[in-house]
Amino acid sequence: MILHGYFRSTASWRVRIALGLKGLKAVQVIHHLRKGEQRTPDYLALNPQGLLPAFVTDDGAVLTQSLSIIEYLDETSPAPSLLPADPVQRARVRAVAQAVACDIHPVQNLKVLQRLRDLGLGEDVVQAWAATVIEEGLDAVDKLLADQPGAFAFGDAPTLADLCIVPQLGNARRFGVEIRWPRLLALEAACLELPAFKNAVPGKQPDAE
Amino acid sequence: MILHGYFRSTASWRVRIALGLKGLKAVQVIHHLRKGEQRTPDYLALNPQGLLPAFVTDDGAVLTQSLSIIEYLDETSPAPSLLPADPVQRARVRAVAQAVACDIHPVQNLKVLQRLRDLGLGEDVVQAWAATVIEEGLDAVDKLLADQPGAFAFGDAPTLADLCIVPQLGNARRFGVEIRWPRLLALEAACLELPAFKNAVPGKQPDAE
Repeated sequence: MILHGYFRSTASWRVRIALGLKGLKAVQVIHHLRKGEQRTPDYLALNPQGLLPAFVTDDGAVLTQSLSIIEYLDETSPAPSLLPADPVQRARVRAVAQAVACDIHPVQNLKVLQRLRDLGLGEDVVQAWAATVIEEGLDAVDKLLADQPGAFAFGDAPTLADLCIVPQLGNARRFGVEIRWPRLLALEAACLELPAFKNAVPGKQPDAE
Repeated sequence: MILHGYFRSTASWRVRIALGLKGLKAVQVIHHLRKGEQRTPDYLALNPQGLLPAFVTDDGAVLTQSLSIIEYLDETSPAPSLLPADPVQRARVRAVAQAVACDIHPVQNLKVLQRLRDLGLGEDVVQAWAATVIEEGLDAVDKLLADQPGAFAFGDAPTLADLCIVPQLGNARRFGVEIRWPRLLALEAACLELPAFKNAVPGKQPDAE
C-alpha cells in the first residue's frame, strides 16, 4: 500500500490516522504542496484532481478523496470499525465528517487561499477568510455533537468524525483560531491518547519541517 | 419523511434523485436560500450548519449533509443500490461524488460567492470564480471517469456519482460554463431518461421560479 501525502495536508492526516487504527502500514510518498508537486504530470496521471492524498492498494488500484479512502479501509479491514452499526448514527458520523471535509477544509485550503491572493486581496484578508471559515464551521460541528455522550465525537471509540475533527483543529491553530469549544478539545485529548492519532500528527512525518 | 430543501440547491437535488430512485416519498419543506430562510432560528435548531438539505426520518431523526443522507437511504432502502458491491469500485464512486460535493460545490455556492462580494469584488470576478471552480472540477471528474464503461458514470445503472454530477452540470450552465465533456453529457442524457432524475430537476419543484 502506498499513501501519497504531505505532512501538513489535513486530508492525508485523516488517512494516516485510519491506517494506524486499523494496524495497516503504507509506504508514504511525499508531494510538497507548497512547491506544487501535486501538479506534476506524473502525479496528475495518478490523481487528475491534483489533490492529496491518493492511495494505492496492494493490487495497484488508485483511490482518491480521503473520506472515500477511509471508507474503503473500513470496508476491507473492518476492525476496529470507524462507523457505528446503527444507520442513523452512521449518517450522523458521516455528516460531521462531511461538515469538515466539504464545508470547512476545501473553502480554506492552500488552493483557495492562493486564488484569493491572485485576486489581489491582502494577506490579512486571506488569513481572516480562512479563520472565519474554520470558526463558523467548527461552531456548527460543536453543535452537531451537543447531544452525543462519550469521550470521542460519537461514543467511546473514535469514528470517522474524530478522524476529520482532530486534523481540522490542528489546522485551526495554524490560522490563529482560538479553540473555544470544550467538547472538541476533550475529544481531541481522548484521541491523542491513542498511538494511531499520536503517530499521525504532522510533526512526526518524514517530511515535517 | 421530510426533506428540507430548495429547488435550486444542488445538494437538495441529489437527495431528491435518491428518493425517486428508491421509490420513497418525502414531504418537501422549502427554505428560500436567497432570502436567507436557512438562517432562521427554527432551521438552525434543526441544522446548525444553516445549509440545505436536512432530512427527517419517520422516527423523527434529523440528518444533514446530502451524501450522508443518501448513504442512509441506501443502507435502509437497499434497492436499487447506489453503490457497487466491489470495495474498489465503491471507493471510486464515492471519490467522484466527493470531487463534486467537496471540491466544486462548497467553493462556488451562494455563501462563498457572497463572501467574495462582501470583500468588494465585482460581480464579473465573482461569476468568473464560480465558473473556474466548476470547469476545473468537472475536468477532473471527466478524467476520473475516463476508464469507466457504461451509459452511466459507473456501469449500466446510476450510482451516487451520477446523483452528484447531474445537478452540478445544471449548476454549471447557470454560470455559463460550456459543457465540453462528451462523457458527462452522455451520462446526463442517460440519467434524464429515468423518471427519478426527470422529476428531481429544479424546474419541476413546487418552489421553482
